[in-house]
Amino acid sequence: MLIAKHQNIIDNAVKANQNRTFYAQYPEHPKAYGEEAPPQGEASFKSLLQQPFSRLKQKVVAGWAGEEVSPYTGEPLGITYPLTDTEELVKAGKRAGQRWAQLGVADRAGILTESLEKIQHHFFEIAHATMHTTGQSFMMSFQASGPHANDRALEAIAMGYQQLQAYPERQTWEKPMGKISIRLEKSFRAVPRGLGLVIGCSTFPVWNSLPGIYADLITGNAVLVKPHPKAVLPIAIVVAVIQQVLEENGQDPYTCQLAADSSEHLITKELCEHPDVALIDYTGSSSFGNYVESLAAKGKTVFTEKAGVNSVILDSAKDIDAVVQNLAFSVSLYSGQMCTAPQNFFIPESGVNTSGGILSFNEVAVKLKDAVTALVNNPKMGTGTLGAVQNEATLQRAKDIHQLGGKVLLNGMPVVNEEYRNARTFSPAIVEVSSADSGIYEKELFGPVILLIKTKDTDHSIQLARQMAAKHGAITCAAYTTDEAVKDKIEDAMNSVFTPVSFNFTGFIWVNQHAAFSDFHVTGGNPAGNASFTNQEFIVKRFVWVGNRTFLE
Amino acid sequence: MLIAKHQNIIDNAVKANQNRTFYAQYPEHPKAYGEEAPPQGEASFKSLLQQPFSRLKQKVVAGWAGEEVSPYTGEPLGITYPLTDTEELVKAGKRAGQRWAQLGVADRAGILTESLEKIQHHFFEIAHATMHTTGQSFMMSFQASGPHANDRALEAIAMGYQQLQAYPERQTWEKPMGKISIRLEKSFRAVPRGLGLVIGCSTFPVWNSLPGIYADLITGNAVLVKPHPKAVLPIAIVVAVIQQVLEENGQDPYTCQLAADSSEHLITKELCEHPDVALIDYTGSSSFGNYVESLAAKGKTVFTEKAGVNSVILDSAKDIDAVVQNLAFSVSLYSGQMCTAPQNFFIPESGVNTSGGILSFNEVAVKLKDAVTALVNNPKMGTGTLGAVQNEATLQRAKDIHQLGGKVLLNGMPVVNEEYRNARTFSPAIVEVSSADSGIYEKELFGPVILLIKTKDTDHSIQLARQMAAKHGAITCAAYTTDEAVKDKIEDAMNSVFTPVSFNFTGFIWVNQHAAFSDFHVTGGNPAGNASFTNQEFIVKRFVWVGNRTFLE
Repeated sequence: MLIAKHQNIIDNAVKANQNRTFYAQYPEHPKAYGEEAPPQGEASFKSLLQQPFSRLKQKVVAGWAGEEVSPYTGEPLGITYPLTDTEELVKAGKRAGQRWAQLGVADRAGILTESLEKIQHHFFEIAHATMHTTGQSFMMSFQASGPHANDRALEAIAMGYQQLQAYPERQTWEKPMGKISIRLEKSFRAVPRGLGLVIGCSTFPVWNSLPGIYADLITGNAVLVKPHPKAVLPIAIVVAVIQQVLEENGQDPYTCQLAADSSEHLITKELCEHPDVALIDYTGSSSFGNYVESLAAKGKTVFTEKAGVNSVILDSAKDIDAVVQNLAFSVSLYSGQMCTAPQNFFIPESGVNTSGGILSFNEVAVKLKDAVTALVNNPKMGTGTLGAVQNEATLQRAKDIHQLGGKVLLNGMPVVNEEYRNARTFSPAIVEVSSADSGIYEKELFGPVILLIKTKDTDHSIQLARQMAAKHGAITCAAYTTDEAVKDKIEDAMNSVFTPVSFNFTGFIWVNQHAAFSDFHVTGGNPAGNASFTNQEFIVKRFVWVGNRTFLE
Repeated sequence: MLIAKHQNIIDNAVKANQNRTFYAQYPEHPKAYGEEAPPQGEASFKSLLQQPFSRLKQKVVAGWAGEEVSPYTGEPLGITYPLTDTEELVKAGKRAGQRWAQLGVADRAGILTESLEKIQHHFFEIAHATMHTTGQSFMMSFQASGPHANDRALEAIAMGYQQLQAYPERQTWEKPMGKISIRLEKSFRAVPRGLGLVIGCSTFPVWNSLPGIYADLITGNAVLVKPHPKAVLPIAIVVAVIQQVLEENGQDPYTCQLAADSSEHLITKELCEHPDVALIDYTGSSSFGNYVESLAAKGKTVFTEKAGVNSVILDSAKDIDAVVQNLAFSVSLYSGQMCTAPQNFFIPESGVNTSGGILSFNEVAVKLKDAVTALVNNPKMGTGTLGAVQNEATLQRAKDIHQLGGKVLLNGMPVVNEEYRNARTFSPAIVEVSSADSGIYEKELFGPVILLIKTKDTDHSIQLARQMAAKHGAITCAAYTTDEAVKDKIEDAMNSVFTPVSFNFTGFIWVNQHAAFSDFHVTGGNPAGNASFTNQEFIVKRFVWVGNRTFLE
């Protein structure tokens, strides 16, 4: 049994989930995977181009489609994916789910962990696929779609493994009634809610989808994986591995199906509204996310990650240069296309207290501008940090900042990528706005745009950051202060709107990063999304405890 | 600290929650509470009649109202309760909640357990209050509103105590990075969602409200308790005790407020839709329950128990007389006004296999009719089992069964209660319907009406019972079979629509009863309601995990 083979991995993951200390099952260093892996992965990726993707076990096919274009080369990948009618997907998923649900949670955990062990052999292939669909740099593509995503998946497996064993499978209940007693045999079953649907996004097609996929599977639900039509390959490779492992272990590969579609004929709403789809995981825009959330009223269990406006509160700092360098990296990383990227910098008009005295608002702005400029123009760092812009709409938004209102302090511009001369690149723009211009900074400006907002003082900064998070959602908040009382105030205010705070990050750690087994990703408490990777709620809503009782004579 | 005083109680309850064995902190035998308690409780109840209820600590009062009428005497209780404007309730609740949230979960658990210890001194008073508002018999009033409700409250406290300590309050996270390592101090806070609202019903004003009240409180949320205007007193007594214990322990009594209203001016929707109300617990009709559930789309976290149609599947039995006696009691208990009462009896047209041979459909029907008739006319048992009918609408429905369609096998009728000659009593009616008449048996017929549905065979019975549960919800299913294969089939079919099955109950245990610490009440998976007393979901949806990180140099 695979559970015996992987018991250690699962036990360690359960422990890590509880302790929240540093833990990684899959190392984030590419070198950990041997010398052969990188060239093999790249070759394998190239061999997939310009042809139908044939690894899936799904046989019912209504046609083939594919429209991915590399943000690095501007060329289509030329890969097509099988299209399947919604009814066929649902029918096959339901049938497979019935069989999958018969397995105990330990057996499911064994098979699912085995699939992660197999996926790691594809990390480099997936990295190239991610790079050429999302525009992430190679390193981010490798880490986010590889080890980090696998760790998040394992986190979900471990949480399910633990939660589904919260109660005894069987128990004798004996109630004393004076001279007699009543005895019942009770059994407790964690009954899966039904078919799951996981809707992916174009920027993190693996990292954002794996938690929902594995959460559905560990709790006994079959799952349909609906990728963004512009970012299919990375997750298609993963689904194919899962299907292979399912089949190798006597399970129905249709337990996990790819539900690809095309921009001309999107099937997302069709899938969402199908009466047999019980669970929906969604990552993407707020407008579609709000639609998904509204399906809760129709009895669907929904998990969303939407948009938010993330704040930086600058109060005081020991080493302001270390601070601006850290922030410059945070805002440049993947050109601001991370859901955790900071956008709104709240800086008091009286300036920021530092070990070298008070720095005025303008001095801080200049330091930040200089740090961003230095980073993006650094030949060793620039393009590797920025990656490429996934799509034209994001690029256009960044180009159009002059129409925003506010005072442009730094224009964004293309940054030459020596390896890919046609890469769609753009460096972060910096715009100064008044605290009165909430119409500007209450919007999510997805991509390489940051706003410096001049506030009356830190209390005012906190008030505005809190208000934005409550009204528009926030996934992160970075704060810099050397004052313990201010720190407590920021923490209380932001936590009250269910936003976590990262204090005084400098060096090789950035507010954008959420580590599996330790950091909850999104809290689920504000408009940025109702779900959290991976708290108990993310798991326990996917199944129902049902207790049966039998009278014992 | 109260937590030290009550640590044993809480630890035992946590253990019982996990093990699901028999456990009761508060004995269900009235005699366990001493000889003085019954007369004192009765006297205390009588002293409350015909005057304003003055025990509450709430001071902002917009007026007084009361409209309770005893189903036993037909006389108004003459008690009035303070009315408070919605805005005042919310404002005071929010303020109190902020303070309450500062307490650690252990301190909250101590104070809340102390309140249960104090409530037990009011069990007899509450019993009389319950009897003369709901129409429950004295014994049921005592048990359901007293020890059983307290045990359910303790169950919620224990689940919260455990869940809120799932993660360390603080943890150092250290990530090795080659020669250096990154260190972060992390803190994990379970932030309460916000103000809670618990909406009570007229039949189980305490039992159905305490889980939500205590779940809100243990997770750090203040709570507004909105009783049914016809059944206020039992829960008002409880709220007053909670307020007293809060105040004695330096907390704001407004942490738990009674939100009474009147039939002329109901404030339920006003409260539900108030933007500051974050959590809603509701017990009552499906139509209002569906409205409450629709508020999920507006960001409310809702917990509902609505109506359902509970089935009995009769396949085979060793001792059919023991079976019909057990079922006769189940349907007569509180005149079918329990949400767990069986309604639809599915019996094969070919009859039921028993140790004495096959009994035809008609023979089973006659046995059931005789058992019900014997029970309700039993001078020692009848009125004590039936209690009284809470309201005229329920009585009228039972009287109108001839308009249902179907063949009336037994008419319901008033049963003389020697102690209360004006009691609103009615015995169960039995109606035979064809399996084709789903229009009749797919409705919940709340009150003393049961339907015998003639099916083709047990497979057909299972199919219909399953279909009813899926479409209209079910809280219980009783099944009788001596065949293990049939048993598995029933269990699988009903569990697949999230309905628990009780097999072969005879003697002093009935399908209506759900024991705290062992039986989940409602699964939350079918239209009978989305919440379950007390699974993890009932607790973890009331707070949000937020993790903060501080860079350590």
